[in-house]
Amino acid sequence: MSHAIFYHAGCPVCVEAEQKLAEAVDPKRYQVEIVHLGEDPARLAEAEQAGVQSVPALVLNGTPFHINHGADLAALK
Amino acid sequence: MSHAIFYHAGCPVCVEAEQKLAEAVDPKRYQVEIVHLGEDPARLAEAEQAGVQSVPALVLNGTPFHINHGADLAALK
Repeated sequence: MSHAIFYHAGCPVCVEAEQKLAEAVDPKRYQVEIVHLGEDPARLAEAEQAGVQSVPALVLNGTPFHINHGADLAALK
Repeated sequence: MSHAIFYHAGCPVCVEAEQKLAEAVDPKRYQVEIVHLGEDPARLAEAEQAGVQSVPALVLNGTPFHINHGADLAALK
C-alpha cells in the first residue's frame, strides 16, 4: 500500500484541497493520512523534511506536491 | 463518473506530477484526461477559463488545483 499524507492548516484553500483533491486519491492503492499542522505542530519538522514549503501539500511516497497556496510553512511555526 | 483534467507542458515538474499525482487519482471514480498544452495550444482557452494559471494543474470537476510550479500559462501562448 502506498502512503499519502495531506498536510494542511485549516485555511479555506486547505479545506477545498482536502475535500476535492485528497478525496480523489485512490483508497485502494493509497493510505491517506490527513495532518492539521496547526493542531499538531509536532509534525512540522517531518513535513519540512519531506520538502513541504507551504500548505496545503500532498506528499506521495515521500514526494511533496504543493497544491495552490494557503500558507507558508514558516508562518505555522 | 467525475472528470479530472491534468494540464501540463512537458516540463520536468509536469512529468513528475503526472506520473505521481495524476496517477494516484482513483480511476473508478474519475475519468482522467491528460492534456499537453504545448502540443495542443487550442485548449489553452479552456484551461484559462477553468482558472488554470500555471502548469502542472489538475482540474477536478471544474475546480483548478495548481501543483508545484512548472510554467505560467502566459508563457505557453
